[in-house]
Amino acid sequence: MASGTVFAKRDVPGPVSKAASNKLSNVFDARAVHFVVNYEKSSGNYIVDVDGNKYLDVYSQIASIPVGYNNPTLVAAAESQEMISALVNRPAIGNFPSHRWHDMLNDGLLKVAPPGLNRIFTAQSGSEANELAFKAAFMLYRRKERGEGVEWTANEMSSCLNNKHPGSPNLAILSFARSFHGRGFGSLSATRSKAVHKLDIPSFNWPQAPFPALKYPLEDHTEDNAAEEKRCLDMVKSIIASCHCPIAGLIVEPIQSEGGDNHASPAFFQGLRKLTKKYGIILIVDEVQTGFGATGKFWAHEHWSLKSPPDIVTFSKKAQTAGYYFGDQMLIPDKAYRQFNTWIGDPARVILSKAVIQEILDKKLVEQCARVGEILYTELEKLMSQYPDQIMNLRGKGQGTFIAFDTQDAATLALSMKQLGVNIGTCGVQTVRLRPMLSFDESYVPSLVAAFCMVFGDKSRRNQM
Amino acid sequence: MASGTVFAKRDVPGPVSKAASNKLSNVFDARAVHFVVNYEKSSGNYIVDVDGNKYLDVYSQIASIPVGYNNPTLVAAAESQEMISALVNRPAIGNFPSHRWHDMLNDGLLKVAPPGLNRIFTAQSGSEANELAFKAAFMLYRRKERGEGVEWTANEMSSCLNNKHPGSPNLAILSFARSFHGRGFGSLSATRSKAVHKLDIPSFNWPQAPFPALKYPLEDHTEDNAAEEKRCLDMVKSIIASCHCPIAGLIVEPIQSEGGDNHASPAFFQGLRKLTKKYGIILIVDEVQTGFGATGKFWAHEHWSLKSPPDIVTFSKKAQTAGYYFGDQMLIPDKAYRQFNTWIGDPARVILSKAVIQEILDKKLVEQCARVGEILYTELEKLMSQYPDQIMNLRGKGQGTFIAFDTQDAATLALSMKQLGVNIGTCGVQTVRLRPMLSFDESYVPSLVAAFCMVFGDKSRRNQM
Repeated sequence: MASGTVFAKRDVPGPVSKAASNKLSNVFDARAVHFVVNYEKSSGNYIVDVDGNKYLDVYSQIASIPVGYNNPTLVAAAESQEMISALVNRPAIGNFPSHRWHDMLNDGLLKVAPPGLNRIFTAQSGSEANELAFKAAFMLYRRKERGEGVEWTANEMSSCLNNKHPGSPNLAILSFARSFHGRGFGSLSATRSKAVHKLDIPSFNWPQAPFPALKYPLEDHTEDNAAEEKRCLDMVKSIIASCHCPIAGLIVEPIQSEGGDNHASPAFFQGLRKLTKKYGIILIVDEVQTGFGATGKFWAHEHWSLKSPPDIVTFSKKAQTAGYYFGDQMLIPDKAYRQFNTWIGDPARVILSKAVIQEILDKKLVEQCARVGEILYTELEKLMSQYPDQIMNLRGKGQGTFIAFDTQDAATLALSMKQLGVNIGTCGVQTVRLRPMLSFDESYVPSLVAAFCMVFGDKSRRNQM
Repeated sequence: MASGTVFAKRDVPGPVSKAASNKLSNVFDARAVHFVVNYEKSSGNYIVDVDGNKYLDVYSQIASIPVGYNNPTLVAAAESQEMISALVNRPAIGNFPSHRWHDMLNDGLLKVAPPGLNRIFTAQSGSEANELAFKAAFMLYRRKERGEGVEWTANEMSSCLNNKHPGSPNLAILSFARSFHGRGFGSLSATRSKAVHKLDIPSFNWPQAPFPALKYPLEDHTEDNAAEEKRCLDMVKSIIASCHCPIAGLIVEPIQSEGGDNHASPAFFQGLRKLTKKYGIILIVDEVQTGFGATGKFWAHEHWSLKSPPDIVTFSKKAQTAGYYFGDQMLIPDKAYRQFNTWIGDPARVILSKAVIQEILDKKLVEQCARVGEILYTELEKLMSQYPDQIMNLRGKGQGTFIAFDTQDAATLALSMKQLGVNIGTCGVQTVRLRPMLSFDESYVPSLVAAFCMVFGDKSRRNQM
């Protein structure tokens, strides 16, 4: 870490950032702006704002920068003829795919497809990916109900145009309390993390199950936690049995991220797989935030050792594009044009995903995340014993750099860290989440830990005053 | 038009295309593929498939290629340092916008903002743009109902997390029969064009009004058409009065495109503006397909001479990005993070939109569309009198190149045209829609008309056999 740039206290946002943000607010809602960035000057794990402040970035654009700012492998992909053509000749992929499309997928996203899932549908955001997954689940549910090969009735076809039964069926997606699955009208109906996302927006009357509220560190509370997970699984079972309408799909994050970095054990997810199999419910694993290596596996659900894979795995963020994987051919609708839209993703972003994957595999960044995560977790454990009122419920052991902890005032801590040159994110109510890029190696750990020490030390001193 | 490439009958799809499509179908749903394209070899108004077939493209990737394949202005934008940075450093724009973001918007999309609308929210697809507009309408409705400055109640905040009243209100968007507004769960609830889009997908119980079924040519049926429009306006009024829940927004396409290229007069839209004003309903004009010049105005709703502008105008397709414009500051939600998502659009695509706009303005392509549309319409009128059983209900007079007609078998006509080297699209039940790029000048009209003649002539001869 360049000395002098970090730990020198600075105003955040600085005056230039404030002015730029004010100017922007004339045409664009800028109230959530932390600071305005000079991306050309940002590099690797460091982000640089327009005031010249340099930050170690462990928030990474809400966990979506995969391999560092201005990564040379990505720059090469961005400069390629393939990219230029993809940018200027944007296809309606479903009708007129490029002759390169197959290989773009095959040599990129499909190279890292979760075990057992060998097909893909591309999209543009995590929200869209999840909604496409919901649609696949609904269509499959009705296809089975209707009977294979049975034609749609005239009544079904006309009633759906009027948003009425039977064409518009009353079916649900089951999600978990505190989950975040996106902000479209379908994905938002499955989202449960915060009122600010949902208030005033009409939603589907879909049910929610409790997500285990585990005690950390997990290994000290195995019995309590197992009981809590059993309670939640029993609730899932009971909701499936008692819901006012059939449940076609169940969606779950491997680690609830926006909702507070809430973990559950492999046994819990194995239980979900068992229940969804038993009741013929499509299991959708939302890996929008956990996918692409940060947990020390390429896909977080690989930690679960499932006997049969999830039915659908959705992705976005670090992939730089979005979509879902699946294996079962029955999840391809009975007719063309049912799962369809004009663009079906963006080849430009798919080309970048290929470069990201190449970088991850070449540099063994998943393995690096596992390794660096161990070191970082151990350091934070030490800090927790030093500042037990500042670091609570440390979690993410064995989950790569996907580490979080509760603290007294997460927003203030995040601001103090920014003032010291560390850009860090929060989630849930009182949680600080670490979301470094995959390029965050062990050399960055001491600076991050030292910044925490300075903030906590300052605070201790202030408390003693 | 290069002779020898067009009018030479060819197999569509050709053998190379078929093989490529089959290979693709192992990993990706390829059932809707018309042919597989070599975009590097495509140029201007011509698209070239992997069999070497060259087509005059008047479908333009479902109306989404703005200014020709491999357009040099767009290529320059794609090669720029600004683009490379935008591609490899994808920001969470709401939190960490680039210092270039204000100018990207200001020198591009905002330069062509519809009169009266000076603010923007960016998105990634027409579906998303429309859903964001719906959310803005719902939040404004509840904000007014709650009273300015009144805080959210604890009950509102907890109930919305459970998808229950009062936090999740029962509010509707009113749309029109045969409309298409996208495929998300909200936008799909407003879509009414075809069962294939909607069947088996749960939807909101939102109402639909009839869209005027006008007689063409419009000028020969002024009285009947005015009566039909009045009937539809009366129905809108009656639905507003009788709907089972309040209607927060009304969405309408200037010309219903996917639903069959259905037109209405300025008077009809003026009537909608009057009604929505009267009842405090947000008027959302969906210019996803009509925007960006093809109708001979930059925005199709400029044909209406409204006294006060629409509240929200959504765009996508030819813009190469998506989003919505608005004017009323009250449409900015009362708090930050309510209208928000990780990426909030894609700067790479916004840079392209700036280049598209520059090309449109520099080359006066909107004026060209108006001019070429006149010529093309006149030619098709002549053809209609020659082949009255093949061209019926010709429409789009005075609407640039946004021209369509009914025919006996639209799918077969489109295939025959492809076999002659013209890539053409259909919509509705029996409609052929012309969606040339803005770069389609008068020199292409004769070839297009000649291809129609050959197909119709062949058919006449076959009929005489």
